[in-house]
Amino acid sequence: MDIYKESVKYHQKLGGKLSINSKVPLKTMKELSLVYTPGVAEVCRIIHKDPARAYELTMKKDTIAIVTDGSAVLGLGNIGPEAALPVMEGKAMIFKEFAGINAVPICLNTQNAFEIINIVKNIAPGFAGINLEDIAAPRCFEIEGSLQDIGIPVFHDDQHGTAIVLLAALINAAKLAGKELGELKVVINGAGAAGTAIAELLLCVGQEKDVCQPVKQLLVCDSKGIISHSRKDIATDFSKKKLARLTNRKNVKGLLSDAIKEADVFIGVSVGNVVTQEMIKSMGEKPIVFAMANPTPEIDPKDAEKAGAFIIGTGRSDYPNQVNNALVFPGVFKGALGAKAPQITREMKVAAAYALAQSVDKLSRDKVLPNILDKNYVENIVSAVKK
Amino acid sequence: MDIYKESVKYHQKLGGKLSINSKVPLKTMKELSLVYTPGVAEVCRIIHKDPARAYELTMKKDTIAIVTDGSAVLGLGNIGPEAALPVMEGKAMIFKEFAGINAVPICLNTQNAFEIINIVKNIAPGFAGINLEDIAAPRCFEIEGSLQDIGIPVFHDDQHGTAIVLLAALINAAKLAGKELGELKVVINGAGAAGTAIAELLLCVGQEKDVCQPVKQLLVCDSKGIISHSRKDIATDFSKKKLARLTNRKNVKGLLSDAIKEADVFIGVSVGNVVTQEMIKSMGEKPIVFAMANPTPEIDPKDAEKAGAFIIGTGRSDYPNQVNNALVFPGVFKGALGAKAPQITREMKVAAAYALAQSVDKLSRDKVLPNILDKNYVENIVSAVKK
Repeated sequence: MDIYKESVKYHQKLGGKLSINSKVPLKTMKELSLVYTPGVAEVCRIIHKDPARAYELTMKKDTIAIVTDGSAVLGLGNIGPEAALPVMEGKAMIFKEFAGINAVPICLNTQNAFEIINIVKNIAPGFAGINLEDIAAPRCFEIEGSLQDIGIPVFHDDQHGTAIVLLAALINAAKLAGKELGELKVVINGAGAAGTAIAELLLCVGQEKDVCQPVKQLLVCDSKGIISHSRKDIATDFSKKKLARLTNRKNVKGLLSDAIKEADVFIGVSVGNVVTQEMIKSMGEKPIVFAMANPTPEIDPKDAEKAGAFIIGTGRSDYPNQVNNALVFPGVFKGALGAKAPQITREMKVAAAYALAQSVDKLSRDKVLPNILDKNYVENIVSAVKK
Repeated sequence: MDIYKESVKYHQKLGGKLSINSKVPLKTMKELSLVYTPGVAEVCRIIHKDPARAYELTMKKDTIAIVTDGSAVLGLGNIGPEAALPVMEGKAMIFKEFAGINAVPICLNTQNAFEIINIVKNIAPGFAGINLEDIAAPRCFEIEGSLQDIGIPVFHDDQHGTAIVLLAALINAAKLAGKELGELKVVINGAGAAGTAIAELLLCVGQEKDVCQPVKQLLVCDSKGIISHSRKDIATDFSKKKLARLTNRKNVKGLLSDAIKEADVFIGVSVGNVVTQEMIKSMGEKPIVFAMANPTPEIDPKDAEKAGAFIIGTGRSDYPNQVNNALVFPGVFKGALGAKAPQITREMKVAAAYALAQSVDKLSRDKVLPNILDKNYVENIVSAVKK
């Protein structure tokens, strides 16, 4: 049976992957009067005087919402809120298993940025953090940006989870290739949520230069080629305009095949089969290739190897070097919640990436990231983020 | 140690009463690939084609949201969303313990009816039902009314849970007093969420006469006295105007002390100590008194007994005949979810009340309702509501 059929059967058997349980039994009138009326009234009065004490007396301290509008789910696109729920449940399972966090799936019946912002603001009191999930670009930028000041961390995993795990992989790949991060010539293919966040993280946008070593030579491509400020078709796309401003200072024009020449690093967050062996051959010495399109990578790892790629990573679990944001989000949230941080800052993201990179034991070309099931890396990320 | 202090210590120890857990372990790559990517993609595709299959493949089928704006929490009033959370968690525990339902507390940072309606509509896809909770009148009427057509049951427990349990208690009390429900002269003190819902349920508003026996003589009082259509102070209060239209056909004027004369039944959902022994003495034969104000009843049960009350019920667990909506909401939701009912109709509410009334074994003046811990009554309500 293939994994798809097996998964459907498994979901039918389970009928939902999550269960919301009482931590204590509820078998006597005494227990009822402690957890509910009349006893609970005093707990309410205390929190009414000082809402911050909800962190001490309720589930808030280790509970987050995973909020999606179902518009960019996995590689499946805009499939709507009900169809997004199985992914949100799976994500909640990972939050619990790897970080002990209670995560509540919230699948929204609206794809209007203003409404989504308003809903997240209004459901926030019961949660210690919000994980935005599978929301399409460029709407995701506006939503996340507008929610940074609500007092609890709001983190769009498809942007920053992916950017952090990629940076960790790149730190180790560069080390193995004997290259300095700051000297790398990098090409990103894909200018959506992930590509944009990776570009900003690699460029150290918005952070002190001493907490990171910015990449200086970075080109970002979309389906039409290299993003540059002379491209008229991006005139009304504020996020691509911003990318044009941040990258490509020499205003290079051309296609991905032009951008990739002499590059040290290729980062694919786009679609399958857009990179050829010839393009890999045109790269600089010891090419580093992260072809993360799912389920089909930008170039088949075997072809990339044949063409001389020094390190190859994908988004898939059946090849070495799986670049998976599940390595990141449990630890980042656990750290932020533990520190009661009001935001997840770029410094925290860089710290998480370095902590993840350093969690690999026996670094090799086939192992630039920890195995997801090892779990030690989670606590390393937690400590780094808390600091 | 008193129950309040003990409850605070208990909450501090627990640090949250609910836990969101995976139903299955997540220890191998195989398990991960079944519940999350890549396997889950096929489950998403199936639901995308037919959103109704979310009931079969996700947690939706037995998961509800408990939504509050923190504006009328217990007897504590408008204490805000964080302070409401301990009550919502306690309620979720009862849902799980008594009906096996996953309940997610959603505490809102807005008290604007339009925003609340919009949020509930938009979070609905992940839930099989919505329990509105502790939302002040008259806003609660508008919110619940506007949400009846969203395809899943929306039930304001403070209205209908209370009305159903009261009707069940009244059915049994009337039987013990040897009176017909339709012949009773009833006075309700309190014209908020609970009082209004009780009045409508007793009058069989909006339902076939053969499913219930309507009370014909009903007066409702608020703090200013009997509600009648000649009262100018209620001119702009649409819910009290409606009560004036439905009750008090003879346009009686006066205070509670006038209304209660010769009444068979007093129902208090107001504030403590507003009923005197003299008022009980002025009632008809074998007076039935439900003094449900919390924590202080409208009249102390001992005083009511001295004055000749035949049956006395309160909202408290330390007196006989506790009229508690916790007897109702688990069974009503389990029945409605099991039947995939799009609404909880008035017929279902009446059926629930009769099922609850019939669940008492050894009916007596001190036992007109089942003990909450007996649980048999839950399945009786479930069957009745499903039908």
